[in-house]
Amino acid sequence: MRVGANAATRLIIEAVAETLDVETFVSSHTFRIADLGCSVGPNTFFAVQNIIEAVQSKHQCQEGLHSQLPEFQVLFNDHTLNDFNTLFASLPPDRKYYAAGVPGSFYFRLFPNASLHFVYSSYAIHWLSKVPKLVVDKSSPAWNKGRIHCSNSEDEVGKAYEAQYVEDMACFLHARAQEVVCGGLVALIITGRPNGILHSQTTQNIIYDLLGSCLMDMARKGIINEEKVDSFNLPTYHMSPQELEAAVDRNGYFSIERMEDLPLSTEVGTLPRSQLLTSHVRAALDGMIKAHFGDVILDELFDLFRKKIEEEMPMIESGRTINFFALLRRKEMD
Amino acid sequence: MRVGANAATRLIIEAVAETLDVETFVSSHTFRIADLGCSVGPNTFFAVQNIIEAVQSKHQCQEGLHSQLPEFQVLFNDHTLNDFNTLFASLPPDRKYYAAGVPGSFYFRLFPNASLHFVYSSYAIHWLSKVPKLVVDKSSPAWNKGRIHCSNSEDEVGKAYEAQYVEDMACFLHARAQEVVCGGLVALIITGRPNGILHSQTTQNIIYDLLGSCLMDMARKGIINEEKVDSFNLPTYHMSPQELEAAVDRNGYFSIERMEDLPLSTEVGTLPRSQLLTSHVRAALDGMIKAHFGDVILDELFDLFRKKIEEEMPMIESGRTINFFALLRRKEMD
Repeated sequence: MRVGANAATRLIIEAVAETLDVETFVSSHTFRIADLGCSVGPNTFFAVQNIIEAVQSKHQCQEGLHSQLPEFQVLFNDHTLNDFNTLFASLPPDRKYYAAGVPGSFYFRLFPNASLHFVYSSYAIHWLSKVPKLVVDKSSPAWNKGRIHCSNSEDEVGKAYEAQYVEDMACFLHARAQEVVCGGLVALIITGRPNGILHSQTTQNIIYDLLGSCLMDMARKGIINEEKVDSFNLPTYHMSPQELEAAVDRNGYFSIERMEDLPLSTEVGTLPRSQLLTSHVRAALDGMIKAHFGDVILDELFDLFRKKIEEEMPMIESGRTINFFALLRRKEMD
Repeated sequence: MRVGANAATRLIIEAVAETLDVETFVSSHTFRIADLGCSVGPNTFFAVQNIIEAVQSKHQCQEGLHSQLPEFQVLFNDHTLNDFNTLFASLPPDRKYYAAGVPGSFYFRLFPNASLHFVYSSYAIHWLSKVPKLVVDKSSPAWNKGRIHCSNSEDEVGKAYEAQYVEDMACFLHARAQEVVCGGLVALIITGRPNGILHSQTTQNIIYDLLGSCLMDMARKGIINEEKVDSFNLPTYHMSPQELEAAVDRNGYFSIERMEDLPLSTEVGTLPRSQLLTSHVRAALDGMIKAHFGDVILDELFDLFRKKIEEEMPMIESGRTINFFALLRRKEMD
């Protein structure tokens, strides 16, 4: 992800230089930045440092504003169960900002009205607020038996996932429209789905399908209960740039100032690709699987998974994915 | 402490009604409250709830302001090593405010300029920022050999503690003068020392002296190293109301609106007083002793301590202490 993050850094610096009207904010003295879905660091610290430096140099370029450099407050947000203790302990000691942690889901209001000047969220809003209800409802045509994600965008499961995304994104934008000052910016780095590509054709979903089939193999061997697999679904959705545009249009309070693909990570290391992929997926889903199935199955599951990945590498490599950057600007309206 | 806290609640409600000029703040939409030294809850949640209700009813009383009820943001502050995860997990789910955690020492700046409307700190500022340097310096006349606190206010150790208090309180007020808006309030609940009473006459110091003598007993028995006892000192200072007044005067940015003794806790329970006192002291100092001496000594130390307390109960009961409430108001000046 570092490759994408570095490219995003450049885009953010440009965005602040071109789009941020710092004069508007001078009267408020404090420039407030929120990182939504910040995790425990250190990536969030690099990101906010870049934003602050970009805002400072914009200030210094604008004649007459130099003497009124604002103070910065950074609000680090993540779920209530995020390890804020670790985040706080690793805050850079030489930081030039006031730091605060804000626990809670970013699909709800987290901050007072018109209190934020820059919102940043990196590789976080592909997490839905919850698993769509219908996919775990046995009586629903969207019941997702034997699978852990929407593998076919056209069917009922796919529609349930899409509906959850539409609802969540509406909540996200509605909350931010209230929290962000007019002229304020929202920079999103999103792991998504190229326009015109079905969910089933994405790298992510091919990988989730393989993981789901490993769970079903273990159910068939009697290691886990099949019903447990039926009730396990990943609350993620990989939106396309077009879907984001539509959500922003529906919301109405933001203009899209920039939308750009980010380079995909091409990690080169000594580890074989299958092992790398397995450890990435395990790092992302470990906690969720443990909470649902208990932790005894983890090693066996990911061993099986690594083997499947090795076998199915050509299929995985045929998968499509994008990371993209979107910059929204809060319109001048109440 | 609940007795004192309940009395303080009433004082805060009165203070807001009489002293807070809510009209001044209406333009800022958000009313920001900070609890400095909040620990992990739940006391902090009761306290901020009371403050919010008091501000709301003041708003409702003031004609024409009802429609402009502000939003509330509460900034929970404590040391970086405080367990913010526990604090966040126990936030009241039905809270009517935006919550944030702010890690760091309140002897430094924690918040942007003029961003707070109400600062609250309860049973926290008797903790100094650090043990005074001189009391652990073997070459200093203030070296505190064989003791763990200042037992005689007149000697060099007492002077070193007092100097640390003066410096810390200056930092505290200097930081708050910048953070609190003009007209904003600072409510302090302090466990202190009555005016005109020497440190050696306070209940706290009599108790610390007993604890120190237990440590020395253990050193004599070879259970702990005597040098370890020499280098262990408690970073607490029990200020008198007069000392607080002097600090506020020296700072110059606050007026004292109210200063009042709080009733002392008269805990009635089934446990004998010695056991109660021991468990209070252990709860407060456990972590610090563990960090310095390791945790193997804890049970033996507090067993010894409980016995000494039983023996010395008349001396403890002759000790003097107060809890007091102070309400400061940020003057209208920059």
